[in-house]
Amino acid sequence: MKALFEPSSIAIIGASKNPEKIGYKVVENIVAGGYKGKIYPINPKGGELLGLEVYKSIEEVKSNIDLAIITIPAKIVYDAVKKCGEKGVKYCIIISSGFSEIGYKKEEERIVEVAKKYGMRILGPNVFGIYVAKPKLNATFGPKKVYPGHIAIITQSGALGIAMIGKSANNNIGLSAVISVGNKADIDEADLIEYLRNDEGTRVILMYIEGLRNGRKFIDALKKLPPDKYVVAIKAGKSKHGAIAAASHTGSLAGSDNVFNGIAKQLGIIRAENVREAFNFAMFLSQAKTPGGENVVIITNGGGIGVMAADACEEYGLKIFDDYENLKETFEKVIPPFGSWKNPVDLTGQASAADYEKALEKALINKNIHAVISLYCETALFDQRDIVELIKKMNEKYKNRKPIVFSLFGGEKIDEVIEKLSDGSIKVFDEVYDAVSAMGALYRRYRYIKEMEKEPEIYIEEEEKIREIIRLAKKDGRKILLPHEAKEIAKLIGIDVSEYKIAKNLDEAVRYSEEIGYPVVMKIVSEDIVHKTDAGGVALDLENKEEIINAYQVIMRNAKTYFPNAKIRGVEISKMVSKGVETIVGGMQDPAFGPIVVFGLGGIYVEAIGDVSFRAAPLGIREAKRMVNEISSSKILYGVRGEARRDIEKISQSIVNIGKLMARVKEIKDMEINPLVVYEYGKGVKAVDVRILLRD
Amino acid sequence: MKALFEPSSIAIIGASKNPEKIGYKVVENIVAGGYKGKIYPINPKGGELLGLEVYKSIEEVKSNIDLAIITIPAKIVYDAVKKCGEKGVKYCIIISSGFSEIGYKKEEERIVEVAKKYGMRILGPNVFGIYVAKPKLNATFGPKKVYPGHIAIITQSGALGIAMIGKSANNNIGLSAVISVGNKADIDEADLIEYLRNDEGTRVILMYIEGLRNGRKFIDALKKLPPDKYVVAIKAGKSKHGAIAAASHTGSLAGSDNVFNGIAKQLGIIRAENVREAFNFAMFLSQAKTPGGENVVIITNGGGIGVMAADACEEYGLKIFDDYENLKETFEKVIPPFGSWKNPVDLTGQASAADYEKALEKALINKNIHAVISLYCETALFDQRDIVELIKKMNEKYKNRKPIVFSLFGGEKIDEVIEKLSDGSIKVFDEVYDAVSAMGALYRRYRYIKEMEKEPEIYIEEEEKIREIIRLAKKDGRKILLPHEAKEIAKLIGIDVSEYKIAKNLDEAVRYSEEIGYPVVMKIVSEDIVHKTDAGGVALDLENKEEIINAYQVIMRNAKTYFPNAKIRGVEISKMVSKGVETIVGGMQDPAFGPIVVFGLGGIYVEAIGDVSFRAAPLGIREAKRMVNEISSSKILYGVRGEARRDIEKISQSIVNIGKLMARVKEIKDMEINPLVVYEYGKGVKAVDVRILLRD
Repeated sequence: MKALFEPSSIAIIGASKNPEKIGYKVVENIVAGGYKGKIYPINPKGGELLGLEVYKSIEEVKSNIDLAIITIPAKIVYDAVKKCGEKGVKYCIIISSGFSEIGYKKEEERIVEVAKKYGMRILGPNVFGIYVAKPKLNATFGPKKVYPGHIAIITQSGALGIAMIGKSANNNIGLSAVISVGNKADIDEADLIEYLRNDEGTRVILMYIEGLRNGRKFIDALKKLPPDKYVVAIKAGKSKHGAIAAASHTGSLAGSDNVFNGIAKQLGIIRAENVREAFNFAMFLSQAKTPGGENVVIITNGGGIGVMAADACEEYGLKIFDDYENLKETFEKVIPPFGSWKNPVDLTGQASAADYEKALEKALINKNIHAVISLYCETALFDQRDIVELIKKMNEKYKNRKPIVFSLFGGEKIDEVIEKLSDGSIKVFDEVYDAVSAMGALYRRYRYIKEMEKEPEIYIEEEEKIREIIRLAKKDGRKILLPHEAKEIAKLIGIDVSEYKIAKNLDEAVRYSEEIGYPVVMKIVSEDIVHKTDAGGVALDLENKEEIINAYQVIMRNAKTYFPNAKIRGVEISKMVSKGVETIVGGMQDPAFGPIVVFGLGGIYVEAIGDVSFRAAPLGIREAKRMVNEISSSKILYGVRGEARRDIEKISQSIVNIGKLMARVKEIKDMEINPLVVYEYGKGVKAVDVRILLRD
Repeated sequence: MKALFEPSSIAIIGASKNPEKIGYKVVENIVAGGYKGKIYPINPKGGELLGLEVYKSIEEVKSNIDLAIITIPAKIVYDAVKKCGEKGVKYCIIISSGFSEIGYKKEEERIVEVAKKYGMRILGPNVFGIYVAKPKLNATFGPKKVYPGHIAIITQSGALGIAMIGKSANNNIGLSAVISVGNKADIDEADLIEYLRNDEGTRVILMYIEGLRNGRKFIDALKKLPPDKYVVAIKAGKSKHGAIAAASHTGSLAGSDNVFNGIAKQLGIIRAENVREAFNFAMFLSQAKTPGGENVVIITNGGGIGVMAADACEEYGLKIFDDYENLKETFEKVIPPFGSWKNPVDLTGQASAADYEKALEKALINKNIHAVISLYCETALFDQRDIVELIKKMNEKYKNRKPIVFSLFGGEKIDEVIEKLSDGSIKVFDEVYDAVSAMGALYRRYRYIKEMEKEPEIYIEEEEKIREIIRLAKKDGRKILLPHEAKEIAKLIGIDVSEYKIAKNLDEAVRYSEEIGYPVVMKIVSEDIVHKTDAGGVALDLENKEEIINAYQVIMRNAKTYFPNAKIRGVEISKMVSKGVETIVGGMQDPAFGPIVVFGLGGIYVEAIGDVSFRAAPLGIREAKRMVNEISSSKILYGVRGEARRDIEKISQSIVNIGKLMARVKEIKDMEINPLVVYEYGKGVKAVDVRILLRD
């Protein structure tokens, strides 16, 4: 990727003397940006452009070319790319649009194919180019003004990307790189992350994503992200209409937002809802020190903003330090009359800059305080110059020791303070909620890194046996495993399955029932009868031989009535399981992300609420636990109304095992244990019904 | 209230020549603001202040005084208030702090008492004063610069209020009034709303609330708000720590956020989460035309911001117009190549101001389009002067016909556009989500007004019988009604209760069971046994005489074993009700809001999620329906997995009836029907258990 990010020579195919044309703007930006490598404008007319010699064709250039930027109409792009390949160009950025985004997918594929032949890679088409701070390369048709810094932007939307460059420059936000990925015919986000995660200049990667075609590659690239780098992502197209709009915009399907959300959590990606939030997060994260613990203190001169900050802390998952003894000892002496040393520490409207400084110093040296939210409300008394000095001084002191976030609220005077601090070195927020949510973003990553675990090896001891069951079913031409086959697989991956036997006749049914022990459940076994309950093929709570005989006859009669030609393999006799909390665990192959696992509580109610969590498989036990805790009804598993806590460890282990299976045995398209009954802590789980579908 | 908002004379008690003192700043602001009434600075030292004669005491002033502003230390406020009363002052604003907010509640009460004696009313203490645009009155110690306009601010936090004035001035936001309510010893939000709702200059009332002491008065004041006025409220102290902070800040308890939320919906209050959102809503609402229907169209020049706007529409409950035939016909001809006439209407980065104008004109004249979200992303091609003209022109055209919201995103050029439009007459947003949420706020109010209904009369036909039951229980010294008494009350307010009889002995138990018809349920009746199930006092699903005899003996034996001295009144025999969806409906007397009703789904799961909705009682049937629809599991009532829709009408009617009961018979502290079993549409509900607690 170095030849893309730090090329030593660039050709612009379609360079133009007309300042209205993209072929002009790109050359102009490259020159104006101060790029030190070789620049070769290409145009059949030849001549000179901005002091550079224009070559009539790429063949005319005698030296090597690392990067070619193509701005010519779509229909002649293929030939240009081919010539680039022949010339030995390493990367092609196709700015031109008019490909898959308007339905011309074939042409796009043809271009990628020919590039591949020459070992050349394509960025685009339908992009605005690339900006990289290190080589001072602004190969875009966007704004000229870009400040170098530590945030890299990867965007799927061109127009938005250009506007983001403008916005960042206007807010003194420094960028390390901006890459527009457009239609992603070849290079996608994952390729770029591969490069950026080793790029010393980049601390935060800010992404605007509409859809991911190869989500698995994306996962793999992000798994290798070092702990001190942040990814902030806007994932648009979450709603139904948004997804339709995204599809018609860049031609990529948005996919399930729930799945993306689960995977973002698993990868430690910080999701932002909109552009302002994304910039706020990126700015703050690119500057903030990692915290050393969970205790957050709010220091304020206004009660109202303190209350709002406390509300916001709860919303964004920050722990308000509440060791009152420690707080009293720390702040009591620096609080003016009528103030409060409780957290929020309220210095009151009477507080001077000196009072603030004392309180912030106290918070800095207290080892039990790990992060500070410093709020200031404009009062009649306060001098803005003092505030500027105070913030600069405190930022300097805190910088290498603790995270601190500043929020100022008021009118003209506050705007002046913000203006004076706007060189980009300190992010100061004008809304308390923004400050707290940025601190929340820092903590999300902090907790993620703290709890990170090694990914489990995806070795399955009984893999051969599992494959054998699948082989036999396939031989039979079946796409759905029979219930006992599915149960057998669940057992083979270590999940406790309710005891069962398949009886081929009434005698066996009676014998097995007695072996298993009453009460038992009887179910018809037939690949032709999917909805067993509807077909009268299930009998519950059978307590003795008479009931078995009776049930067997009824079930067989029902089966023959409803499905005269069904192939009946017998009945399944299983232990009637005792009551517990019903959950659903499962796995599936997602079109974008590959093997994923899913968890939720069973029962019609929760299903209707859609309270489920997702992760990519494989996953470790901690991640599985997080997944269990994430659903909004997880309280039930911790015991409500005096009930005992449930065996969450065993649920999590079941999820881990299904994850391994889904990652290892890709022939399984879909697996669902419903219900997985969960008992008290230490008493495990029991899979009652298991359903497995195979791939086509 | 006129003497408070438009006084013809003002005395400032504690007027000072020291510019650092509040007593100086208030006089200075009044003079600088251009107030035309009489101003009487009061200070024992006498002399002159800012060209005004200073009176040594209020008695020295010979003319009448409408309003006195008190800025002297807390301990001498009482005497000053008393003198004001003697002088015949109508309103006193006590700016001084040091009262209930730091625990000195008694002194505050004493002051209000003496004021009452003279028919004088108190604003404060612990406030920053009042600003009113009409009489050019700035009687605050806040900023001098305030622009007149149509937004009134009522704030419980002084510091925040001052900062809000500064913020509004700096953003050219015009205010009609700003009132700081502080400790609310006498005048509270409700009193101020009484005035503001008739004030022609006020279109939006923006409130910052931490806690409400008299919520019922607040409800009554807001019920009379005319349809064309908006209330935007920030309710802080929602979280545990926030509530603690609020309590120590203004000494008022924050109360349950869930209850406030339900009542805000019932009153058509638009809740804002933070100050930015509140200002955004207030600005937009003070300018926007009310829509004529639900169809919203997004017009954009950038695909990415279009996708985000579509996502935001879903989040904020806006209906994206999707009649494709109509959309195609409307926009097809004004869309450049590669654009999209689908909604979001994408004009592409190639769009000129003229293209925009055409599209916006089309949307304006199309009767099926009711609101427009107009988005613009900075491109290399677009001239910002054209945009300024376009927005001005379109705003003018739309102003009296349809709501339109503008959002611009980009760098320097966009900031220039926003700067040029910043005279306050058009609110232009720089974040798509802000624009959409403001439009969402408009629609919340629109729908509220559209569906508003007359409040039901709270006449209960059988009120006397209900009161008789309560009288008898009270005579008995009971605070909890016996189950059959509670059921009787439920029946008397028209709720279908499962049939039951009280049997005093076994013979009656058998006879009643046969009268009611098997299967039946038997429960012990005793005021001494509260947890009947735990005591073995319940038998379900009894199918014949033998089972009745058996159950009766077991229940009596259990009762005597567990509670040897319990007073046993017999057993309740009730019809075993058939299965349906279990819900909980109830009512209670809230400490702040008085009678309220509550609804949620029954069962342990939903209880754990806390998925319930609240409203103030009484309420109409539409409001009750909204309450039912509001819970996140309401889907279940509309039929999941092919089940039939439930009798939502009957649930709503039950809520309405309980609401009347709670509003009318205040002796009832708490009533809960759990479960209220709900059947298919048209088949009604059945109350299985009813619990009623009486007030002390």
